[in-house]
Amino acid sequence: MSPSESDRRAAAAEEYLKTISVKVNAELDRNLPPTTDRPSRLHEAMRYSVFAGGKRLRPGLCYAAWKALGGKGDEIFLATSALEMFHTFSLIHDDLPCVDDDDLRRGRPTAHCQYDEATAVMAGDALCVLAFELLSRTGVPEVVGTMARALGTYGMIGGEITDIESEGKKVDLDTVDYIHDCKTACLIEASLVIGAQIAGASQSDIDALARYGRRIGLAFQVVDDVLDVVSTTEQLGKDAGSDIELGKATYPALIGVEASRKRANELVEQALEALESVRADTTVLRDIAEFIVKRAN
Amino acid sequence: MSPSESDRRAAAAEEYLKTISVKVNAELDRNLPPTTDRPSRLHEAMRYSVFAGGKRLRPGLCYAAWKALGGKGDEIFLATSALEMFHTFSLIHDDLPCVDDDDLRRGRPTAHCQYDEATAVMAGDALCVLAFELLSRTGVPEVVGTMARALGTYGMIGGEITDIESEGKKVDLDTVDYIHDCKTACLIEASLVIGAQIAGASQSDIDALARYGRRIGLAFQVVDDVLDVVSTTEQLGKDAGSDIELGKATYPALIGVEASRKRANELVEQALEALESVRADTTVLRDIAEFIVKRAN
Repeated sequence: MSPSESDRRAAAAEEYLKTISVKVNAELDRNLPPTTDRPSRLHEAMRYSVFAGGKRLRPGLCYAAWKALGGKGDEIFLATSALEMFHTFSLIHDDLPCVDDDDLRRGRPTAHCQYDEATAVMAGDALCVLAFELLSRTGVPEVVGTMARALGTYGMIGGEITDIESEGKKVDLDTVDYIHDCKTACLIEASLVIGAQIAGASQSDIDALARYGRRIGLAFQVVDDVLDVVSTTEQLGKDAGSDIELGKATYPALIGVEASRKRANELVEQALEALESVRADTTVLRDIAEFIVKRAN
Repeated sequence: MSPSESDRRAAAAEEYLKTISVKVNAELDRNLPPTTDRPSRLHEAMRYSVFAGGKRLRPGLCYAAWKALGGKGDEIFLATSALEMFHTFSLIHDDLPCVDDDDLRRGRPTAHCQYDEATAVMAGDALCVLAFELLSRTGVPEVVGTMARALGTYGMIGGEITDIESEGKKVDLDTVDYIHDCKTACLIEASLVIGAQIAGASQSDIDALARYGRRIGLAFQVVDDVLDVVSTTEQLGKDAGSDIELGKATYPALIGVEASRKRANELVEQALEALESVRADTTVLRDIAEFIVKRAN
């Protein structure tokens, strides 16, 4: 692919994500409890963190997979709301003083800074639980299991705790791959699988989307680590350089920035290959793959 | 009921809970990830907190409701495992330094003391997520929604955060009722409803069990608060007197110990009345109601 073609695709994906965000955010607003209901401060904290910005990448991928595979109906927005809530739950708990101790997220004070630690713990818990309720209302029971496996100790939480335990230690590339795979790729993979499951897709299409998701998920995390090294805090909207400060196990730390960028590009190529077996128009998913390596924050 | 009859019933319930605990614990062991799997320290922390003792009241109620209503099959033990994991998740997060800051639970160091705070946060999260996965495998999709509603901001988490926010403040009996209802009664009610749902019970039986559960749940919390005042730390296996120390909103603080005991007895009477419409042998549930007001820890 020519550089200009690649740029055009990344820009198209950014446009797509912006457009779909409007509907995704409206549905999140509908699905989050109102601050007029008790416990109002907790409901406010949940909304504060969910509406702190963010690209809505996971909802966007879920919707794109569902749409490509012929999905119909409004249940998909229960799933997109749930995905963003699960993602926010993980960010809130990751930012806690006892975990990564981050003060900034998406350019604003993190939940425990804006409210307090107890509220941050409970807001994360409440988002996780509410998200499962929303998934249970999709009418497609298997999405609950898909999500729980992606989030659990063999998925996201496993990656997060290993990430914390590896701080300041010398770790090999296998461990970094394991952390990235679990911490980031599992949830992105699940976003695609759930979209496909709600669309009633065939198992072979679900499997192909899962492979695509795993690869772009890994690429996303490699790029994230590169951006942490090369960007400013202002560009990122979160503390830049915090990986190095915490002695985090990252790709740039192990193989350098240039080799990391090359790795991200290879992963995107593999992701695009995985899409070849899907008998549907996967343009949006291809565009998003390009966007993931081109993004600046 | 004569005092000796009431004692006999409470003793029978205690015996029942002990017996059912053996199977409940064996199934918990089967459903928790092995410590030989990565992330092993987190898996160890999950097991540490789940196997720290405890009466297994919620699994016992779930099983008793299911059995009374003619339940068949092994899926019920996915639900009993899930209920105990949800309960443990809430205890671990409640004990955190930023929440109740408790060092002792069931006579042993709390999770964050035994491991560290980050591990405690993640162990709680992981138990919650795994429990939803287990519920998704029962083959009765509605139990996921039942549970999520009971745990969320209109249920357990709502009660917990209001409990924290009320510390050191003057609160009225309505607020104490709201806190108890949410914090404790919702999960106990859900234990019964889920047992009945898995047994394929009628809606009127489910509703009656829900009413019974709500009443014994409230009674349980009132007795818990009384025990915090009148017992020693050794008897309780957790820090006695901690409610007063934290300025917690409790029944004994508002109306005194004797009036609180009377209130617990009234609630149990109401619970027993609710069982009258259930066309099944509810002996075990009646015994457990007595046990709840008679227990010493």
